[in-house]
Amino acid sequence: MTFRVTILGSGSALPTPRRNPSAHVLNVHEQFFLVDCGEGTQARLMSCGINPLKINAVFISHLHGDHVYGLFGLISTLGLTGRRTPLQIFAPRPFDEILAAHRRYFDTELPYEIRWNEVRTRRSELIYENKVLEVRSVPLRHRVPAAGFLFREKTPPLNVRKEAVARYGLGIAQCVAAKRGEDVALDSGETIPNGELTYLPYRGRSYAYLSDTLPSARAAGLVGGVDLLYHEATFAAGDKALARQTGHSTTVQAAQVAEKAGARRLLIGHFSSRYKDESLLVEEARGIFAAAEAAVEGASYEIPLKREP
Amino acid sequence: MTFRVTILGSGSALPTPRRNPSAHVLNVHEQFFLVDCGEGTQARLMSCGINPLKINAVFISHLHGDHVYGLFGLISTLGLTGRRTPLQIFAPRPFDEILAAHRRYFDTELPYEIRWNEVRTRRSELIYENKVLEVRSVPLRHRVPAAGFLFREKTPPLNVRKEAVARYGLGIAQCVAAKRGEDVALDSGETIPNGELTYLPYRGRSYAYLSDTLPSARAAGLVGGVDLLYHEATFAAGDKALARQTGHSTTVQAAQVAEKAGARRLLIGHFSSRYKDESLLVEEARGIFAAAEAAVEGASYEIPLKREP
Repeated sequence: MTFRVTILGSGSALPTPRRNPSAHVLNVHEQFFLVDCGEGTQARLMSCGINPLKINAVFISHLHGDHVYGLFGLISTLGLTGRRTPLQIFAPRPFDEILAAHRRYFDTELPYEIRWNEVRTRRSELIYENKVLEVRSVPLRHRVPAAGFLFREKTPPLNVRKEAVARYGLGIAQCVAAKRGEDVALDSGETIPNGELTYLPYRGRSYAYLSDTLPSARAAGLVGGVDLLYHEATFAAGDKALARQTGHSTTVQAAQVAEKAGARRLLIGHFSSRYKDESLLVEEARGIFAAAEAAVEGASYEIPLKREP
Repeated sequence: MTFRVTILGSGSALPTPRRNPSAHVLNVHEQFFLVDCGEGTQARLMSCGINPLKINAVFISHLHGDHVYGLFGLISTLGLTGRRTPLQIFAPRPFDEILAAHRRYFDTELPYEIRWNEVRTRRSELIYENKVLEVRSVPLRHRVPAAGFLFREKTPPLNVRKEAVARYGLGIAQCVAAKRGEDVALDSGETIPNGELTYLPYRGRSYAYLSDTLPSARAAGLVGGVDLLYHEATFAAGDKALARQTGHSTTVQAAQVAEKAGARRLLIGHFSSRYKDESLLVEEARGIFAAAEAAVEGASYEIPLKREP
């Protein structure tokens, strides 16, 4: 029951030997979701031991090169390695035009279909859902239309407690009702509250990706209670004016969003290449939000299963 | 007086952990020329210690992604790092349309100008020239219009031999005439042949890049006598039909081109990812052309100065 984020790239527009352009992979129960796709993403998937063919869907936050230039090589590689299942790509307009231009110019015959889904960047919407996961868009405030993403593992069905079955002598119909969350009336006339009969095997886990953006109280509200928040922190606290001007956040602002959101853990990244000592950036964030750390290239962040008592 | 080729990438369309997509850098007297620009080229420039700002011009052989997807990130990086001098890009049509579409979609304001120069792919032309170098296009035979490039260091002016000045008591006017390549008449009436008075400090060196292509006798003729030939060898000798079908060469065909051209040294690359043991490919090429070797990622190939006796 994996829920793991792997950082393929957490740099900003200017790549450095330390940080690659933006790309994360989320593994939810061995389904893989790519979030942004900067140049070199396919090579880093390989070096992180993730087969590109396993990717279920791609989510692009905005159409700046450092978040998307790796996508076209990846699309080609998926074709050459025999992908047949359609690839869903979630991205703001005019990604459809970019993709069409790309395919027109680059002699790309693909053995699979690309299904583009528009991400609207002004409102939050449920944009993707399957049995185990739902994904919501989170409007961001950047120089171009941009959206973050909230990935939320679905909470599984209730389990009936074995000891309750034994104690109350529950039949199949009563167990089914209990699993639906109902209180159960016994033959004796007594009604047993559902909470005594069932438990949640675990609570759904969550990960939010907010980059690139000015700090946004609205975004903080939309990702409330998130387990793992990745928030860009392009600038140090002292460079707030520069952050404002370029549509980015400072370390302190990222930490304030994490605090407002009630996040459990904060990863910061997308640092401007001007900062040689990133530990100072982390210190600034920790002054506001203790569970802050710098995203580490190639590292995986596992969110443990939250079992109910 | 450097003349050095650095292999940033020598893989084929499907990148592998061993080989990156195509990109070479030629350093001629500390002027840098980029040949093809597959995904990740800017990162590999950095890892090879070559400052991207030093690039004088870019030469693109053809518009397949594995030869060009790294260019847009590089263009952005040059802007962010303050390039002001125009960047010349030599590429076949419709590179101009691709670049225009790219700039329209990707919010790229650049502090420098990009000057596209069309490379015609049906005839060989002198496409670039400066004080120390000239570059000729070499028509190739691929699935899309493609051209290779022949980089030739210019032969420097003649030097006058000091011992000849002393022996014949040459004056300034006589030395100038000798430098122009003329025979010199002495006051005695005797005429001294130019060869006795002067020497070439060195002969111009050359490097040719032929990828992607079917084997071409015409191309071999155009790069006749080249010092260092890079020729694609996507397929093993036994997969000749596949090479023909996809517009590529085999190891043996690459070696035959080197032999026909009278090349001094052959680097092969662009190997299909299907071959796990590349040493077999090199052996096949060496059976025809002894001075064949596999291009090594990140390696530099220096062509020593050929001093005249």
